[in-house]
Amino acid sequence: MTISQRRDRLRRRLVANELDAILVTDLVNVRYLSGFTGSNAALLVSAESEVPVLATDGRYVTQAAQQSPDAEVVIERACAAHLATRAAADGVRRLGFESHVVTFDGYGVLKRVAPDLEFVRAAGTVEALREVKDAGEIALLRLACEAADAALRDLVDAGGLRPGRTEKEVGRELEARMLDHGADGVSFETIVAAGANSAIPHHRPTAAVLAAGDFVKIDFGALVAGYHSDMTRTFVLDPVAQWQLDVYDLVATAQRAGREALAPGTGLKDVDAASRQVIADAGFAENFGHGLGHGVGLQIHEAPGIGASSAGTLLAGSAVTVEPGVYLPGRGGVRIEDTLVVGGEDSPTPELLTRFPKELVVIN
Amino acid sequence: MTISQRRDRLRRRLVANELDAILVTDLVNVRYLSGFTGSNAALLVSAESEVPVLATDGRYVTQAAQQSPDAEVVIERACAAHLATRAAADGVRRLGFESHVVTFDGYGVLKRVAPDLEFVRAAGTVEALREVKDAGEIALLRLACEAADAALRDLVDAGGLRPGRTEKEVGRELEARMLDHGADGVSFETIVAAGANSAIPHHRPTAAVLAAGDFVKIDFGALVAGYHSDMTRTFVLDPVAQWQLDVYDLVATAQRAGREALAPGTGLKDVDAASRQVIADAGFAENFGHGLGHGVGLQIHEAPGIGASSAGTLLAGSAVTVEPGVYLPGRGGVRIEDTLVVGGEDSPTPELLTRFPKELVVIN
Repeated sequence: MTISQRRDRLRRRLVANELDAILVTDLVNVRYLSGFTGSNAALLVSAESEVPVLATDGRYVTQAAQQSPDAEVVIERACAAHLATRAAADGVRRLGFESHVVTFDGYGVLKRVAPDLEFVRAAGTVEALREVKDAGEIALLRLACEAADAALRDLVDAGGLRPGRTEKEVGRELEARMLDHGADGVSFETIVAAGANSAIPHHRPTAAVLAAGDFVKIDFGALVAGYHSDMTRTFVLDPVAQWQLDVYDLVATAQRAGREALAPGTGLKDVDAASRQVIADAGFAENFGHGLGHGVGLQIHEAPGIGASSAGTLLAGSAVTVEPGVYLPGRGGVRIEDTLVVGGEDSPTPELLTRFPKELVVIN
Repeated sequence: MTISQRRDRLRRRLVANELDAILVTDLVNVRYLSGFTGSNAALLVSAESEVPVLATDGRYVTQAAQQSPDAEVVIERACAAHLATRAAADGVRRLGFESHVVTFDGYGVLKRVAPDLEFVRAAGTVEALREVKDAGEIALLRLACEAADAALRDLVDAGGLRPGRTEKEVGRELEARMLDHGADGVSFETIVAAGANSAIPHHRPTAAVLAAGDFVKIDFGALVAGYHSDMTRTFVLDPVAQWQLDVYDLVATAQRAGREALAPGTGLKDVDAASRQVIADAGFAENFGHGLGHGVGLQIHEAPGIGASSAGTLLAGSAVTVEPGVYLPGRGGVRIEDTLVVGGEDSPTPELLTRFPKELVVIN
């Protein structure tokens, strides 16, 4: 699907919602619909016109022309306000706006500069389109996940997880190795959590030292051309205790159950339940306090959320994580997370993008 | 000044603005007023009570208690909505809200859950307090600037700017060296711009190779405990041409003029003009297309802006950058930037935080 085809999908939504146009002000949504990556922009997409209007400021004249060759580019620092007046001048009456992004003050400006427009809340309209990835997006997610896989493989092979290193050192090395493998950056600050710290779901790396017998939980991702990978693996530094084997096996079983539930049309909360039930049946329901997963793409967290109270169903072609965990305060925890693409009706098996093995690795 | 003294300043503003309380939803402002650094929070500060109410979610029970020991902590995922109902229950009638941060939809929720409150726009109230740094903040800015200074010194001493390296390699090494010197992270993506790329004010590092005769412009900063440093230095790789010496000397003279204009009470646009005039007098007005500087602290860009159209005056104790540049498209450019703290009436000389020398360094 090309970027103009993404806009065609949006334009059909506009018609269905009886909107003449939509003013897109979320910068990630602007990027999705135009290719433009500058830090100040807005996009006007009209139901009737195939040519969107991209507003940005003078820093981005060249970049906007390069990244959005099929848009009309307008150079105007007050992007959203300008496009509202432009919409009014073009005869728009009902204008959708991103009411989950536009601030109270920003809305006041829009109303003032275009008092005759009917502003209609259109929160989440573009995000809903982004939930289903097209082939180009999946290709970039694959590259991001491959960079993360390769970096973790290198880290382990080079002895990067040995006792005596700090969590911070491990995190820095892993991040550097992702860049070596072609990542533009990291998806988010790498989590490296050793020993009792592994029981903290989102632990920030500290000067804590890896020690024999520790769980080492690593949650990280690579960024490639705007697309984020997300993967968690948990290791043990020799010697491994029986309780560690038991917890690891439980989480691995729950994670497999979550992956196997990833069929298009399945209720999101049923996907969560498929995995969560395994942990609950073992008596650890209280030790898995977060949702099972989330969509991933141009943002590290995007639609759909996969949790116990999520509404809606899984869509073919969405990219999601499956990441159950069991956390035992003061002792340690295990999380295993993959990024996958949900299959279609014809080939319902999801595509696994994060391919680093999930068998427990005991580091000697 | 302690964090509770920051809140005392805010509470005096509330009284002056006839507000019973303010609902703080900008996370940087929440951090400034409470010390709490979680990713989901809101803070209710009342004119009458010394104890603020901090709302956050279940992930942060321990962290909130540690970071905000003098706040009442409430665990509630819908932080802002909860605090609005709390304010109403506490008898607040006029509640300030951050109308430049709260979204249109977010405001709708606040109105719905607390229909009897009078919501009053309080955009920028906390940001105005943050403009003047207290001693603890300046100490952290010093540490951040020292880490950046030391990293650049190491990079140069280790021969990191030699011909044949790529912009990306130089940027990665500099960032790693900041972490080695105690930075928690980087202030922003490091700019390394060689040769003709140095004429692009905000160039992202590429695979372009440093070559003899190039300008190499490096704009970067370290992050320490939430505080950002910001510094630009421009080098030449031997041999240096006369035009490069001339441009460098011009920018250095303009930068000195800007620093010397940094006295409390001076108009912001007069500070800009003091530096800009030097460049204009030399006939390069068109080649300096951005503002002279900006405030820096918990954000890399914050109040005050120092530009040709900035209103207001410089305040004693504010931390700002001074960063004129001259950019010659296709040839190269020079920017020299320092971070400084504006002095007080008694000692009006600003404190220079970025101490790496500004004499032109020609790399052999």
